[in-house]
Amino acid sequence: MSPAKGLGIRDGEKAVELPGRPDAGLYFIGHIHTPWKERKDCPKNARESEAVCVVEVDGRCGDGLKDVETCSHLMLLYWMDKSPRDLVLQVPGHYGVQHGTFALRSPARPNPVAVSVVKLLRVEDVKLSVVGLDCLDGTPLIDIKPYFASTDSVPDAVVGWHKRRDEAADS
Amino acid sequence: MSPAKGLGIRDGEKAVELPGRPDAGLYFIGHIHTPWKERKDCPKNARESEAVCVVEVDGRCGDGLKDVETCSHLMLLYWMDKSPRDLVLQVPGHYGVQHGTFALRSPARPNPVAVSVVKLLRVEDVKLSVVGLDCLDGTPLIDIKPYFASTDSVPDAVVGWHKRRDEAADS
Repeated sequence: MSPAKGLGIRDGEKAVELPGRPDAGLYFIGHIHTPWKERKDCPKNARESEAVCVVEVDGRCGDGLKDVETCSHLMLLYWMDKSPRDLVLQVPGHYGVQHGTFALRSPARPNPVAVSVVKLLRVEDVKLSVVGLDCLDGTPLIDIKPYFASTDSVPDAVVGWHKRRDEAADS
Repeated sequence: MSPAKGLGIRDGEKAVELPGRPDAGLYFIGHIHTPWKERKDCPKNARESEAVCVVEVDGRCGDGLKDVETCSHLMLLYWMDKSPRDLVLQVPGHYGVQHGTFALRSPARPNPVAVSVVKLLRVEDVKLSVVGLDCLDGTPLIDIKPYFASTDSVPDAVVGWHKRRDEAADS
């Protein structure tokens, strides 16, 4: 966790004081191997990339993978600890407009837990080959969940601020 | 975090040793108000319930909600700390069959971070009224993310072990 205050905060951004100590603890359960060694190399949108990434689960948690191979898609939760955790208003470089942290998928957030929906290609021992990630090589893994279309899929969901931006770009 | 070892572990379940200390820390950023005070009262499936729940964000994080009201749906991340964290194989009571923890959405997992996709009804100050939750009243909130259909929605995703179970029940 690195606080943004004072260092490199953009015009229109706002940081708040973080609590003195955490309320709960996470265990890393593995790591994610991707082709991207630096932030600038990562795809802007995970669906842009067909790169096969490998999720490696720690041996002690290996039994937890039983039946995962029957899932076509998974939700992966991972830890993006390279970003400030105290920003509540942000001006993402590629948008140039101020938004609240909770209206963004930016890694800069109080709890940098990313959620990515990935396509599962295969499981070999404790290694899962997947498509649909955009994170840095070596990113710590927090959780693997089966993706249930019945509760997780909402094809007609809309992010209004983003849609308006796309429409303005099209006109 | 409560370890399952020795207490109430079912036949077919397996617990492993947890690390001595956590690798990362979470800050609770608010709480979720639901109608359910005990686990037995919670709906089995969030889509079963039309109950309106209220997500209350801590005041210090309130600015982070800017533009969230333009989202039709959100991903909520919350902390389910009432379950054991050391189970890698589980036999859920309502299924009665052994599965790996990472093939289940059970709250019992190394990092009990739940992800729910909810429909946003309205935002009033730091309170969000949503539909689509099944968690206990008072559950700690970890994160709010905009739901992007382009990356988060996979209508044809399949959980094979669950599908086979449904098909067996239908025949």
